[in-house]
Amino acid sequence: MKLRTKTARFTNPLYLESGRILEPYEITYETYGELNDDKSNVIIVPHALTGNHHAAGRYGNEAKPGWWDKFIGDGKTLDTTKYFVISTNNIGSCFGSTGPQSPNYPSNEPFRLNFPVLTISDIVKAQRILFDSLGIHHVRAIIGGSLGGMQAICYAIEYPRFADIVIPMATTAYTRPWAIAINKMGIEAIRHDPAFKDGHYDVDDIKDNGMVGLAVGRMAGHLSFLNEASMREKFGRNYTESDGLYELFGRFEVERYLEYNGYNFSKNFDPLSYLYAVKTMNIFNAARGSDTLEEALAKIKCEFHLISFKGDVLFFPEEMHEIHEVMCSLGKSSHCSYLEVDSDLGHDAFLIEIDKFSDHVLKILGDK
Amino acid sequence: MKLRTKTARFTNPLYLESGRILEPYEITYETYGELNDDKSNVIIVPHALTGNHHAAGRYGNEAKPGWWDKFIGDGKTLDTTKYFVISTNNIGSCFGSTGPQSPNYPSNEPFRLNFPVLTISDIVKAQRILFDSLGIHHVRAIIGGSLGGMQAICYAIEYPRFADIVIPMATTAYTRPWAIAINKMGIEAIRHDPAFKDGHYDVDDIKDNGMVGLAVGRMAGHLSFLNEASMREKFGRNYTESDGLYELFGRFEVERYLEYNGYNFSKNFDPLSYLYAVKTMNIFNAARGSDTLEEALAKIKCEFHLISFKGDVLFFPEEMHEIHEVMCSLGKSSHCSYLEVDSDLGHDAFLIEIDKFSDHVLKILGDK
Repeated sequence: MKLRTKTARFTNPLYLESGRILEPYEITYETYGELNDDKSNVIIVPHALTGNHHAAGRYGNEAKPGWWDKFIGDGKTLDTTKYFVISTNNIGSCFGSTGPQSPNYPSNEPFRLNFPVLTISDIVKAQRILFDSLGIHHVRAIIGGSLGGMQAICYAIEYPRFADIVIPMATTAYTRPWAIAINKMGIEAIRHDPAFKDGHYDVDDIKDNGMVGLAVGRMAGHLSFLNEASMREKFGRNYTESDGLYELFGRFEVERYLEYNGYNFSKNFDPLSYLYAVKTMNIFNAARGSDTLEEALAKIKCEFHLISFKGDVLFFPEEMHEIHEVMCSLGKSSHCSYLEVDSDLGHDAFLIEIDKFSDHVLKILGDK
Repeated sequence: MKLRTKTARFTNPLYLESGRILEPYEITYETYGELNDDKSNVIIVPHALTGNHHAAGRYGNEAKPGWWDKFIGDGKTLDTTKYFVISTNNIGSCFGSTGPQSPNYPSNEPFRLNFPVLTISDIVKAQRILFDSLGIHHVRAIIGGSLGGMQAICYAIEYPRFADIVIPMATTAYTRPWAIAINKMGIEAIRHDPAFKDGHYDVDDIKDNGMVGLAVGRMAGHLSFLNEASMREKFGRNYTESDGLYELFGRFEVERYLEYNGYNFSKNFDPLSYLYAVKTMNIFNAARGSDTLEEALAKIKCEFHLISFKGDVLFFPEEMHEIHEVMCSLGKSSHCSYLEVDSDLGHDAFLIEIDKFSDHVLKILGDK
């Protein structure tokens, strides 16, 4: 599989939903496979909240491959001997695309808290400009989970003729108070963490030492990526061997897991990017710009296939089911389907249990 | 209703499960109604994680009555014209009973992090010593929810002849990794909050200013006291009027609620008491001291009636149901029942939806 990583720079202003302007901006992206002559083999895979453009393959001797490597590659579900898959890093992120730590023109000082709040529509709009610059004006499919699923929905509504097929997974048409509440812990813990310094923290210091607030926010996230059953299966009531049961800070294995992943994450993700990404998720509402969700979904012209996961406690299956019901009520059942994957793994299943939806996706793509 | 508040002091050592000793210790408690001549009308209502002894009635012009005032009082379910209800403040708490801020004998310095980790068994044992001192050696009933339900279960197993009737509500026989994970946010946020100062914070300073870490922990708690549906019903996607949608720190109503309750709580509860209470909850396991849960529950001699709440996402109904199944497998179905209350309110329902289980409790008590 041919893996390429590039960064494109745009100097035309990007007009944002908030009324603000991003100018200039950069988008880092990866491609897998080869674009065919008539550019008809493109699949886009937008990433989740804290994801990045490295969706598949390995850089050199990298220990872990990209986040959807089980799904994308030669002979895999998104077969890169056939498709040209593009994964772009969302603007606002900290992995190469323009984000809060990028230089603000013309001062060249980092934006920090002056970075504009972005919506899913803004992120998708920036991607469309990138694809235009690559001469790609139509794609075969857009497939994404979680915040990537929000982007998929947004593409389907706002650019009805852009994709033949859109597959949103483990997502919602509008973020509900439950998910917003889960995100709240991180927002509060980060903004009041003395190390945050009103956004004026030293980026290298955070990379070296992490940030408690960001780690706590990530722990809340892990709650919602897993669920009661998957935690019970994974950790039981096992207690960390080195800790005493009657030590105040003695830990169960589930606590050690949350600590490890939380603090590790906080060294590898930017706190401001986290706050901006969470804000984007919180204010997502596919119906904004329309009177109702019905009116928004009525704009969809592509094939629209929804996949939810039974144990998902971040975006519950009912949320995806509701979208399907609206689509059916609009008379669109012939090009819309809904699949609830039977899974115990919760929200994270869309990254892990590829086997459970691979055939379904292959059929939708006409590859099986 | 006659409401009395008292504090009892004990100078005999309290031998704890950890092997440590608490000596001396005090227990603050309230009573409602009058003890009858043969002391046969006592009902005990143990409190939840951050509750206290003020379960019913009002002190003077107090704005809010005790936490179970809808349930306890003259003519109410636990009718104080008939019953003598006792509510004790758990040791380890910050509302009068001996806790981490109490003077450690003989130095008279506050225990702080030298306070011993307590188990539910320890808390119940201390209560039994209080009741002994009051000449109460047998009670009609013990009724408690959440951590109070753990105490109820513990009474039934460890003091099989002490109560005629035990009614655990919205609780579990052993805390599962999901609940432990929810508690983890508070533990991490508090211990790493610079204001915590390794437990050497100024108590008055926290009362005046609160503590972010404790507030964040409480926000995580509120997640589990409510649930997806109850939050949707309560807050929808309403946005705080004074905030801008595209302000990074602009808030949805659910966020304002969490902030208000989180920070308010952090001014009214002691961070160390919180850490100790959470630890007590995390390590609760009714089977500890027995080989299996079956062996533990086999010790129960009283009437044992379990009540769960459909939307509870802290202690799921399945956890209560499991206890009932074990009781039935032990041949105890004649004096054990299980009721799942149909509720949308989640864990907090045991404090709010009294109407939904009042008749059931009255029948169990033989009062209807």
